[in-house]
Amino acid sequence: MVSVATMRDVASEAGVSTATISRYLNGKTNHMSSATAKRVTEAIKKLNYVPNESARQLITKQSRLVAVVAADVDDYFSTEIFKGVNSVLKKNNFIAVLMDSDSDEQRELGTLSSLNQQMFGGVIIQPLSNDLKAFKKVIPQNIPVVMLDRQVENSPWPSVVTNNYTISKKAAQYFKDQGLNHVFVITNNVKNVSTREERLSGIKAVFHENVQIIEPGDSEDSFNEAYTKLKRSVAATHGGLIFALKERWLLKFLPKLIRDGVIRKSDGVHMTGFSDTSLTDNIDPGIKVINQDPYQIGVSAAQILIEGVDSATQPIAKKIEIPAQF
Amino acid sequence: MVSVATMRDVASEAGVSTATISRYLNGKTNHMSSATAKRVTEAIKKLNYVPNESARQLITKQSRLVAVVAADVDDYFSTEIFKGVNSVLKKNNFIAVLMDSDSDEQRELGTLSSLNQQMFGGVIIQPLSNDLKAFKKVIPQNIPVVMLDRQVENSPWPSVVTNNYTISKKAAQYFKDQGLNHVFVITNNVKNVSTREERLSGIKAVFHENVQIIEPGDSEDSFNEAYTKLKRSVAATHGGLIFALKERWLLKFLPKLIRDGVIRKSDGVHMTGFSDTSLTDNIDPGIKVINQDPYQIGVSAAQILIEGVDSATQPIAKKIEIPAQF
Repeated sequence: MVSVATMRDVASEAGVSTATISRYLNGKTNHMSSATAKRVTEAIKKLNYVPNESARQLITKQSRLVAVVAADVDDYFSTEIFKGVNSVLKKNNFIAVLMDSDSDEQRELGTLSSLNQQMFGGVIIQPLSNDLKAFKKVIPQNIPVVMLDRQVENSPWPSVVTNNYTISKKAAQYFKDQGLNHVFVITNNVKNVSTREERLSGIKAVFHENVQIIEPGDSEDSFNEAYTKLKRSVAATHGGLIFALKERWLLKFLPKLIRDGVIRKSDGVHMTGFSDTSLTDNIDPGIKVINQDPYQIGVSAAQILIEGVDSATQPIAKKIEIPAQF
Repeated sequence: MVSVATMRDVASEAGVSTATISRYLNGKTNHMSSATAKRVTEAIKKLNYVPNESARQLITKQSRLVAVVAADVDDYFSTEIFKGVNSVLKKNNFIAVLMDSDSDEQRELGTLSSLNQQMFGGVIIQPLSNDLKAFKKVIPQNIPVVMLDRQVENSPWPSVVTNNYTISKKAAQYFKDQGLNHVFVITNNVKNVSTREERLSGIKAVFHENVQIIEPGDSEDSFNEAYTKLKRSVAATHGGLIFALKERWLLKFLPKLIRDGVIRKSDGVHMTGFSDTSLTDNIDPGIKVINQDPYQIGVSAAQILIEGVDSATQPIAKKIEIPAQF
């Protein structure tokens, strides 16, 4: 067997308190006599004491590392979440590390299952998958978990999200009040993704059956097909609102729609959508968009997580909404 | 003292080989008799064996976690490096975690010193500081280290960088051949940052003394001052090349220079620079830029690191250049 000396063993050997050992290890020797410091040095040497994190973790069963598993670190939204998480964790002496699911559900599960083997004090996930059973299999059971951006149905973990329904409804109402009667929603496949479902519901609450869904795929061909369909539909309804459920679609469609004269200054066609950066600011004619607050979402998730770590309990499965701006 | 049972202890207690214990722990019990499996289960229970990563690390002194300390995760360049690193590490059963220096040299040192306490198998750093002494103090001495994007003078670690000098010279020569005689270099403070020094040297190798440096600060006032100075200088020299040493300056200056009519299609004023995204592609008139390959830089750094981990030696302090495209 490998014998691992504890801090208590060192304290006993040196004839000092464990607090003194702790101060010594943290470099706070200014209120310590040199004789004491010498005794501690010798005790550490004699017992071959290894004051490292792994030894500490074996004893305390708690790590100061928190894994933030982002959907895609290429997205400004994901990295901004990480910055928010990090700002809170740093203050609490935790270290946030970012791991990337790379927009791949299998990779997400692989990353999460790797956490089982490393010792992490907590996990914050921006989930891609909606498969609760798969998540439950791979997420370590004894550490606090917080989900953000999206919800997983019936999940036992708390989640921090944008007020998707309310803000989409508000934006939709604003354009309805301008006299627009149709909405063309540009989105990825809505099914099973809470964020998209909620946004669509908010729009439908205002425009009812006058909502048409356009789903551009990932290929260039599929995008072109969707673009042509959109142009034709907008012409057929004599205008309306084009609503992009995420910034990527806003940036892909808007410049082309302006260039083709579909969207003009003071016209019957407007565009809006969820936007995370200020990239649409420089586009002329200017458009009014929904800005989420990923940094604050990260801050809130980290705060909930830390409560869980400190009380050594799983945070309750509440839903926190961080309001977006329109 | 806390006694930690090793896999060997368990094997001896159960009367089987350690390979059998390993197979048992990895769930590969299909070629194991149920009697053997039962003996292993009981031995583990009796010795209170904890087959976790921390215990393993204490014994093997090797972690499968590699820290990638990025200058700023908001930058596409930094996250793309991480993606490249991750692609190699995954194949080698390492897990890359991203940590953020947030463009703050103090934070960078803080992050690096936290690695001492956790057990990481290696560190890949995109350094902000050029302070070798400070780095040596905080970087764990017993794990392989690779630096990328920038070099730290006299550093004992290998580095993977863009061919800054060569590509800058090539771009400068291209515009000189078009008949341009002056260069206005837009950059942050050049001093002590290898990337900027090398880029500037490449430009000077072509334009010699006809190089003027413009350093816009971080504030809006300072940017406006730099912008006015640039416009005035370009008018005074009757044209020339505006060379942005990083994409941020390209995106800040270019649209304004076009709007103000400083840069026109077929004119005596051209602009180029280092660009990491395709954001300048949609700007009209189009410009020819230098594109780096951060993904490949990450791949190369990870490969060097893994050699170091496998041979348990510090990789030698060579410099690898990943060519950019112009």
